[in-house]
Amino acid sequence: MNNTYLDQINWTEDGLIPAIAQDFETGEVLMVAWMNRQSLTLTVAEQRAVYWSRSRQKLWRKGEESGNVQRIKDILLDCDEDVLMLKVEQIGDIACHTGRRSCFFRSLRDGEWETIAPVITDPEQLYGKPST
Amino acid sequence: MNNTYLDQINWTEDGLIPAIAQDFETGEVLMVAWMNRQSLTLTVAEQRAVYWSRSRQKLWRKGEESGNVQRIKDILLDCDEDVLMLKVEQIGDIACHTGRRSCFFRSLRDGEWETIAPVITDPEQLYGKPST
Repeated sequence: MNNTYLDQINWTEDGLIPAIAQDFETGEVLMVAWMNRQSLTLTVAEQRAVYWSRSRQKLWRKGEESGNVQRIKDILLDCDEDVLMLKVEQIGDIACHTGRRSCFFRSLRDGEWETIAPVITDPEQLYGKPST
Repeated sequence: MNNTYLDQINWTEDGLIPAIAQDFETGEVLMVAWMNRQSLTLTVAEQRAVYWSRSRQKLWRKGEESGNVQRIKDILLDCDEDVLMLKVEQIGDIACHTGRRSCFFRSLRDGEWETIAPVITDPEQLYGKPST
């Protein structure tokens, strides 16, 4: 009866699902984070990405500190119902906490992870306390 | 001393890491599967995607049955070192076991998962025994 879109998801034992955020225009994969029922419900309601921080064990409204909000354009589910993909508009053009556009900024070259994308904004500027 | 690219990965307790496969030309996200040390090593060596099947507990050379091999164009690692992204050339234009191009073929519309991508080839044709 109450078989909602939430019930159709194969949540992990911890009640989570990974969510890929992809730029809706360029197709660039920006990051992967986790969601629980509450964060997905809020994501749908607010039309902005709300994740579940496993390290902090709390809701994480993407951009709440940096301002780099992710506006939702589409929410997709895969065939096994255990991965979400968000098509987003990335405000501020920075998704990664390192100040880079994408979290996938290292490429395997000759057996080593090589950094291939620049820091756009210093993380201290993104997350630091406002100067007085 | 022997700190290879494999050692720099944050493997799960089960020794796995999720890998996103993305079409290297269109940017379309095709699927997400798992890798262990052996499958990533083979992926690098063979320059085709080799995953670890959790359900079958064995190596899974993508396309070994269907022919829909994924040729490696790039391998990326995210900032937390716990997600891989493969940029691939998807042979046969089908990544999903349902016979669709991408595994992300359902979109959340008005609170329901709506199928938005067609089956290109019947799975029975992809995986079935050859007709006599």
